[in-house]
Amino acid sequence: MTDFAALKRRFHLPEGVIYLDGNSLGPMPVAVPEHMAHVLRNEWAEELIRGWNTAGWYTQPARVGDRIGRLLGASEGSVVMGDTLSVKVHQALAAALAMRPERKVILSDNGNFPSDLYIAQGIAGMLGRGHELRTPAPEDVEAAITDEVAVLMLTEVDYRTGRKHDMKRLTEKAHAHGVLTVWDLAHSAGALPVDLAAAGADFAVGCTYKFLNGGPGSPAFIYVAPQHQEQAAVALSGWMGHTAPFAFSPDYVPGEGIARMRVGTPPVLGLSALEPALDIWEEVDMQELRTRSIELGELFIREVEARCPELRLASPRDGTARGSQVSFRFEDGYAAMQALIDRGVIGDFRMPDIMRFGLTPLYIDEDDVRRAVDVIEDVMSNRLWDTPQYKARKAVT
Amino acid sequence: MTDFAALKRRFHLPEGVIYLDGNSLGPMPVAVPEHMAHVLRNEWAEELIRGWNTAGWYTQPARVGDRIGRLLGASEGSVVMGDTLSVKVHQALAAALAMRPERKVILSDNGNFPSDLYIAQGIAGMLGRGHELRTPAPEDVEAAITDEVAVLMLTEVDYRTGRKHDMKRLTEKAHAHGVLTVWDLAHSAGALPVDLAAAGADFAVGCTYKFLNGGPGSPAFIYVAPQHQEQAAVALSGWMGHTAPFAFSPDYVPGEGIARMRVGTPPVLGLSALEPALDIWEEVDMQELRTRSIELGELFIREVEARCPELRLASPRDGTARGSQVSFRFEDGYAAMQALIDRGVIGDFRMPDIMRFGLTPLYIDEDDVRRAVDVIEDVMSNRLWDTPQYKARKAVT
Repeated sequence: MTDFAALKRRFHLPEGVIYLDGNSLGPMPVAVPEHMAHVLRNEWAEELIRGWNTAGWYTQPARVGDRIGRLLGASEGSVVMGDTLSVKVHQALAAALAMRPERKVILSDNGNFPSDLYIAQGIAGMLGRGHELRTPAPEDVEAAITDEVAVLMLTEVDYRTGRKHDMKRLTEKAHAHGVLTVWDLAHSAGALPVDLAAAGADFAVGCTYKFLNGGPGSPAFIYVAPQHQEQAAVALSGWMGHTAPFAFSPDYVPGEGIARMRVGTPPVLGLSALEPALDIWEEVDMQELRTRSIELGELFIREVEARCPELRLASPRDGTARGSQVSFRFEDGYAAMQALIDRGVIGDFRMPDIMRFGLTPLYIDEDDVRRAVDVIEDVMSNRLWDTPQYKARKAVT
Repeated sequence: MTDFAALKRRFHLPEGVIYLDGNSLGPMPVAVPEHMAHVLRNEWAEELIRGWNTAGWYTQPARVGDRIGRLLGASEGSVVMGDTLSVKVHQALAAALAMRPERKVILSDNGNFPSDLYIAQGIAGMLGRGHELRTPAPEDVEAAITDEVAVLMLTEVDYRTGRKHDMKRLTEKAHAHGVLTVWDLAHSAGALPVDLAAAGADFAVGCTYKFLNGGPGSPAFIYVAPQHQEQAAVALSGWMGHTAPFAFSPDYVPGEGIARMRVGTPPVLGLSALEPALDIWEEVDMQELRTRSIELGELFIREVEARCPELRLASPRDGTARGSQVSFRFEDGYAAMQALIDRGVIGDFRMPDIMRFGLTPLYIDEDDVRRAVDVIEDVMSNRLWDTPQYKARKAVT
């Protein structure tokens, strides 16, 4: 049995804050500062260049990748760390398109995270071969999977509403039409059980600063299904993906397996901060986490709907059809979220009118949910959001 | 006057080590652990998602970029941080090629760092339009600049020998032939004075973990000359380069100026570790640093040549023609470097026979150079490298 009360004590949560934004940036595991002090003082400072061997920096992207892979149903040696999610989307999509040179359609949906769509637009522009990006509504994606499509590129869980695609069903239909899949797990990894192997996913990517709690700007990951690894074309052919980086040979030869998806020198400090966060996941049963997440979501919806009639549910009501967040629509949602944040309930706002709340069982419990709704009720029923400064303030995140 | 003795005290240098490998990974500034503890405990842990505004994370890539730009003769707003050097080479080269669509030749040299060549091969393969990568010997590059060439992509200082290209002269010839330039400053930034504006460079890229002392895998930088910023095509079109990332609009619109060269969520921890290192540079006069660097190089060459006849100078003898490193050739250089490292003199080895020594005046002085040569002499004259374990050991860096 996962001991959620014990897990909560492994995070630093500021006094007076109920943190419902772990879907954007997870809180700091308490073990991080000491671990980072060790990495700085004992690895960088003392080992210097030798740290690439003695401290295991060189193998860290694969080692950490395998730890994350275990949370995603990925076999050993099929996940590697590095760069940002946008760069990893670029790598996965470019490799997938190169495997379907005769097809010109990239199928996504209009609820996908914009950066994924931007990256697809950038690749299409760079290739200059008439690739078309199609973005039907999420519910129309399944019908749009045809033999014309080269790649189906979707984010499993919608960043605004939390609506969850059926990865297995869509991947099966894609394969029946000869379509390759790229799954973005930004709002899935650490949020719910994922089984990439069982779903038959071809490529997957994700970030680690949300539900995995790796810290601001922590490195991304990429998964390539074992059967594709030796065929995957490498568009970002940096030296760390070379079969023998330290031979310094003049021609690029892709490395074996997932190693070819490495690009440049890995971000050692960022990867190191992520490691104590992954230690916590060793204690978590993902099915129990999922059950708790759905329970917390149902409690939150019930309480908000009973006490705040101004807010309209934007997420699926069925807990199994959403990720680990619940969103409500409210026309002045931006101002309302500012008012909540000033009162210690931190969620976030997404255009045009979405108030997002992450419900993350590692450090959020029923008591937090009830206390958060007390504050939301106060802000809504007393129109505490209706002030010039809340309406004028501009956020960057 | 730059006070080099005072600067040396701002670095942690391990007991019993003379560190001549700052050209690969710089040592840790003593201010880093406390600063990182602050970033972790006061920014990430306490500010959580608010840190993007309150701790300035969102503007950090531009702010840190400007600090580095001041060391490189780049105007404000023309350098931005992020990703790795390989990714930044990709961005610069892709943008430059898109500005010369009718030309198909990428000109580099056979002494360029292999990752730059690999990235060029990757772009050529992805574009599939018959681009050709030419790599003459470094001394033949100037003659190879013709009207056929789209982009001249060079590393200013050779990673093996330290030989330095004349950036201004080559850029002038390039422009006379309508060729755009991409300069890799990996071994220049923090090693010698660079004046990108005076040289007329079009694009430049570099890393920060070498002479800038940013830590293992610290983020890279990219420079785009002001007159090109609004035309530069964006191949890696991630959301952070969008003109309004938080509008979440479906179509990519590149940001103003250098901002479009941002890609994904910035690596906050890596950028933060770099900041105390940049504080040190505020105290440095680059011309005085260059003078010291050449003096240390001359002393090192004189002492080694007088005492170690087995080693043959691989670097230019003229100090003004090389960067801030001195390399020697020795057939068993790999084993010899292992023997040196075990005796506290840390340099590194590059295939096939290059022993590299970084001479970095921020923390290396004449006394270090003389004591290092004492050890080199001992290793060479007593053949201390000639043991099975030194010959068998395999390094990854």
